[in-house]
Amino acid sequence: MKKIFLLLAITAITASATAQKVNKADSTQLRNIFDVALLNGKSYDWLDYLSNEIGGRLSGSVQADRAVRYTEKELNELGLDKVWLQPVMVPKWTRGFKEYAYIETAPGRTSVVNICALGGSVPTPPTGLKTEVIEVQNFEDLERFGREQIEGKIVFYNRPMQADLIQTFEAYGGCVDQRYAGAMEAAKYGAVGIVVRSMNLRQDDFPHTGSMSYGDTPPGQRIPACAISTNDADYLSNALSLKPDLKFYFKQSCQTHEDVESYNVIGEITGSVYPNKYIVVGGHLDSWDLGDGAHDDGAGCVQSMEVLRLLKQTNYKPKHSIRVVLFMNEENGLRGGRKYAEEARLKNEKHIFALESDAGGFTPRGFSFDTDDANFKQIESWKPLFKPYLIHFFEKGGSGADIGPLKDGTVVLAGLRPDSQRYFDYHHAANDTFDAVNKRELELGGATMASLVYLIDKYGIKNETTEVKN
Amino acid sequence: MKKIFLLLAITAITASATAQKVNKADSTQLRNIFDVALLNGKSYDWLDYLSNEIGGRLSGSVQADRAVRYTEKELNELGLDKVWLQPVMVPKWTRGFKEYAYIETAPGRTSVVNICALGGSVPTPPTGLKTEVIEVQNFEDLERFGREQIEGKIVFYNRPMQADLIQTFEAYGGCVDQRYAGAMEAAKYGAVGIVVRSMNLRQDDFPHTGSMSYGDTPPGQRIPACAISTNDADYLSNALSLKPDLKFYFKQSCQTHEDVESYNVIGEITGSVYPNKYIVVGGHLDSWDLGDGAHDDGAGCVQSMEVLRLLKQTNYKPKHSIRVVLFMNEENGLRGGRKYAEEARLKNEKHIFALESDAGGFTPRGFSFDTDDANFKQIESWKPLFKPYLIHFFEKGGSGADIGPLKDGTVVLAGLRPDSQRYFDYHHAANDTFDAVNKRELELGGATMASLVYLIDKYGIKNETTEVKN
Repeated sequence: MKKIFLLLAITAITASATAQKVNKADSTQLRNIFDVALLNGKSYDWLDYLSNEIGGRLSGSVQADRAVRYTEKELNELGLDKVWLQPVMVPKWTRGFKEYAYIETAPGRTSVVNICALGGSVPTPPTGLKTEVIEVQNFEDLERFGREQIEGKIVFYNRPMQADLIQTFEAYGGCVDQRYAGAMEAAKYGAVGIVVRSMNLRQDDFPHTGSMSYGDTPPGQRIPACAISTNDADYLSNALSLKPDLKFYFKQSCQTHEDVESYNVIGEITGSVYPNKYIVVGGHLDSWDLGDGAHDDGAGCVQSMEVLRLLKQTNYKPKHSIRVVLFMNEENGLRGGRKYAEEARLKNEKHIFALESDAGGFTPRGFSFDTDDANFKQIESWKPLFKPYLIHFFEKGGSGADIGPLKDGTVVLAGLRPDSQRYFDYHHAANDTFDAVNKRELELGGATMASLVYLIDKYGIKNETTEVKN
Repeated sequence: MKKIFLLLAITAITASATAQKVNKADSTQLRNIFDVALLNGKSYDWLDYLSNEIGGRLSGSVQADRAVRYTEKELNELGLDKVWLQPVMVPKWTRGFKEYAYIETAPGRTSVVNICALGGSVPTPPTGLKTEVIEVQNFEDLERFGREQIEGKIVFYNRPMQADLIQTFEAYGGCVDQRYAGAMEAAKYGAVGIVVRSMNLRQDDFPHTGSMSYGDTPPGQRIPACAISTNDADYLSNALSLKPDLKFYFKQSCQTHEDVESYNVIGEITGSVYPNKYIVVGGHLDSWDLGDGAHDDGAGCVQSMEVLRLLKQTNYKPKHSIRVVLFMNEENGLRGGRKYAEEARLKNEKHIFALESDAGGFTPRGFSFDTDDANFKQIESWKPLFKPYLIHFFEKGGSGADIGPLKDGTVVLAGLRPDSQRYFDYHHAANDTFDAVNKRELELGGATMASLVYLIDKYGIKNETTEVKN
């Protein structure tokens, strides 16, 4: 029994000593970072330009190209040690004219509904597609109904996001198979098109786009896919229960083109002690085309740029090289993330830490870490430093899509975790616009990221030769 | 040294045993509460009605009266054990026609600016007031400038909220003296009116009203007071630096009337074990008149109503009597809060706990507690129960204005603490409307409150005879 007491006591004392040890210099540095971010931040102005002067930045678009040039210029103005563009070939898909759809309950009795093509979808025939609808909740339903009941019809996937899940990304994860694989699965049963309930926890009129895949469906068998707003999904479902043989019409002219050249935008502060060891902070510069991509992921880009600016403004000289990477093509290809990791491997660039912000510009709550116990424990010991900023969420879990390809068994990966309650109100929809981002919330996110980058740079990571004893 | 180890060890073991002991049944109950709130909540519909069908509910207004009748009816429909109205005399102040103001830099060169009368202000003369302006940051500036430079002028208080404070209520606390006491202080130096920079952390065009006091300034010496939007405050300040003798014109026709009768709306589930011991949960039913009072404090009212509904829906039979109290007149008098406490004392009603929600319908982060160490420690031991709901903030501090008068040395007082970053974007302004409230965020707040009420009811409070051994 006494041994247990002793052990517990030592643990308690160690924990508090660690907390105290990092407290003074580090808490001053964190305070400085937050002060500069909140009193003299740049991220909101950058986001204003990206959103309101450039707009939606779908890979391969003129807007994506303008965003590359703009952020390159702005990074150059920060006086970093290096700024460059990393070429990468990206897919190009265009939406064409605005989609149009209606429900026809009897000849001449039609109600227009709000849809948008899913990213990567083929078009409908030029005159549109009109046929009966079969509503399903999941792929098991397809099997249950079988070709007999599905062939020649439009499959309507209507499984909603689960409102009782506190973390809305879990609710998204539980639904997104309908959007991503719905067309390829329905095509197997002879469906001629699909309509997917928007991934949105709110009842409203915005259809939400997003990527989809045909898998290995041969080109001739690919069927057009669109998303319908949550209000109209309910309307369609109700109409179907009253009139199972109603018809649904939709028309879209989207197209996939040849791949085009684009760029990751990269800026670097070269490390004073370990110039060849890298810390990456980033977001993705491309966005969907319906809104202006302010939350997804303009916010993450400008916060990442701000991290380097905040370190400079607070006169912190990093030991490791710190890079901001604005990845191209997260939304419909992940080519930028893959390219960055590939080149890093070719050049034998040792990455110790990568942090992505791609969950909206909302009040930050903390981080999710993809790392081992030793590193997680070290990071957890910094929690008291973050408490004054109400940053409390430090959990193991995923990080970010663009930095995922860097995973190599030693690099510590992390994702900023902002409050997620409103994220899917805007995600991939026309209302993901600048006015939906609050300046302070955005700035707090950038400061929170800069604080973690500072701590990782100062103390290094565990199980890696760059570890620095304090 | 050994004694310290032993003490630490015992503390650690006790803490972990407590956490485990409450875990199972309680975590199930909390999960049930959150499920009902998120899947089948009523609070958002109630708020829709209060905001969109009734609107701003200033004390003594027709809307305030309609809100009393509506909430009484809705509480009756919940099947509570008792629902009643508690009469209370409240002040009645009306805004009159829309205020009008401009800056005149030269005869005929005017720019209209956005202002609103402060609550309780006297009107300007019917033709308005036009004179020179002196800009100050605080009351010390008044003393420094003296009667010589202030007499006959309009005093312009322009100290902004501090953006570097993480908790925005602190920034508000650091500024609100300008609004509350600005007129009485300026009048001492012969000012003829005041203009106050809106208590808003955002740059926009909304003027923010709020209560003010003339203290013991004799009626004949009371000067009119208005708030100006943050954008126009900057504009006025810049204009003054270029043209110190510019003139400011404003006109407002607000009026204070005789007190009128109004009501606190009260509903009760009578306790099964301690029917004469009370738990109160509440918000204030009155609001300012510019918006529809959705965040301040329609949200707190419907969340408080929802607490009782959630307990009923989850089939929880409280040991103590649990009351929802919708207080009247928090904004400009606190008469409802005082009246409730006064009657509770007269009737010798022992209150063990009171919880107020009056900080907006944003994502809840936790609670602030006005209580002793023993109770705070017990409440802290429940933190693990709240972790799945991302509720992490448990601190000592203030509670709520309406429940403050209940303070008696034993009652535990608490305030819900939602994310505060956006609160002052809407506070007391025309944009405090239903559409600024997110359904999930509102519902999470109600569920968080119900969870705490459930735990307090089940385990009782410390230093009080109702304490229940588990």
